[in-house]
Amino acid sequence: MGERNILLTVGYDGTDFCGWQRQDNVRTVQGELERALGELHPEAPHVIAAGRTDSGVHAIGQCVSFRPRSSSIPIDRYPAALNRLLPRDLKIRDAREVPGRFHARFDAKQRTYRYQIMISNQPDPCYDRFAHRTHRHPQIARWNRMAAALVGEQDFTTFAASPQAEESTVRCVHAAAFYAAGPLVVFRIAANAFLWRMIRSIVGTILELRSSDPEEFGAILNARDRARAGTTAPARGLFLERVEY
Amino acid sequence: MGERNILLTVGYDGTDFCGWQRQDNVRTVQGELERALGELHPEAPHVIAAGRTDSGVHAIGQCVSFRPRSSSIPIDRYPAALNRLLPRDLKIRDAREVPGRFHARFDAKQRTYRYQIMISNQPDPCYDRFAHRTHRHPQIARWNRMAAALVGEQDFTTFAASPQAEESTVRCVHAAAFYAAGPLVVFRIAANAFLWRMIRSIVGTILELRSSDPEEFGAILNARDRARAGTTAPARGLFLERVEY
Repeated sequence: MGERNILLTVGYDGTDFCGWQRQDNVRTVQGELERALGELHPEAPHVIAAGRTDSGVHAIGQCVSFRPRSSSIPIDRYPAALNRLLPRDLKIRDAREVPGRFHARFDAKQRTYRYQIMISNQPDPCYDRFAHRTHRHPQIARWNRMAAALVGEQDFTTFAASPQAEESTVRCVHAAAFYAAGPLVVFRIAANAFLWRMIRSIVGTILELRSSDPEEFGAILNARDRARAGTTAPARGLFLERVEY
Repeated sequence: MGERNILLTVGYDGTDFCGWQRQDNVRTVQGELERALGELHPEAPHVIAAGRTDSGVHAIGQCVSFRPRSSSIPIDRYPAALNRLLPRDLKIRDAREVPGRFHARFDAKQRTYRYQIMISNQPDPCYDRFAHRTHRHPQIARWNRMAAALVGEQDFTTFAASPQAEESTVRCVHAAAFYAAGPLVVFRIAANAFLWRMIRSIVGTILELRSSDPEEFGAILNARDRARAGTTAPARGLFLERVEY
């Protein structure tokens, strides 16, 4: 029997969620999605996400799959059917059928995130949910010389927020660059996968580095020493933008 | 005696406010500001705003003045002192001393607003608070030919949301233009002052006009007939950006 497997593209404003992962008594993205799915499917299917985002992290193109046992809803009706049951800060952007063995997390070939930085010494409530504010003078060319050191298959232990006892700390970064975007500086990074809080640790380290020598950043990365990393940048600036399969 | 008069530049995410104007039992920008000022000044001064924004409308550069009777707080300490007492979606961006007879509303020479439009057929919770979403194909050049008709001193009765029994419906628009800004189309308009809901009525009318003839818009404006205007565009896209004195 061909079991249906459905892949949703999901967007959320992460501010008022305690992250992706379902937990008792707190509001999470997985919890809200499974609650809505449970209203359409008596078996209340579980969902699998490409990236389990932390509390406060946003998504434009999170990818989420589930296997309905009992659904006759046509695929193009899923977004509207679920969006009626979802809160304003969590919406389905697209839905498509995928093969039965497809896995939203293990089959993802590339994740792209962006981190938004507001350069200002004045608070701006209209960006407060979606950007990390700093009054440091932007140095995009210098920051990009540091970001270039990230590209390639490397051991990212320096930027791993917790020691990974069993898993490898090697990841392959495909691209990493800062660019100006209106009142923001945006850091966009794509990799096969990321370590826990790796992007926020990279951004915090680059913003803090006082040295005018971009090679200093390469030395920090190559040290494979968590103690060399800077402060982890806040969650509010981080967006899961896109997942490729 | 030289009474102090203080002008604040204020930003707010208007989503969770019932507009500017103080009202009993609802959360308003004026109410929150006066509550915070009351914690610093025993006489609880009232505030005057350059523009009394509606429910859901945002501000980056709202201008607000008040006359403290009892304050020895240095002017450069006001933003931090008030921001500690204010919620996350309402913050003081700047403070300066102004002459005793300065009036934040009557002395304003120009107000600049912007209206953010997201062109997409997919919901995006990260823009939901701050943009009106439409799937209409953007036609920036055509929209700008319509916007050009707005410039100058004219009677804007067509775009007045309520009949103005006593006040004049003549306003002087200094500039009005649409431009692309990343995933958004932004409409920016500057005038000496605006009628109630005038900007949202203009945007709604332009977005709805099916005619390929931009002169049709000029005819609607010149008709001075409210019935000719389109639907009022939603508050979420509108920002008070700047006030000039």
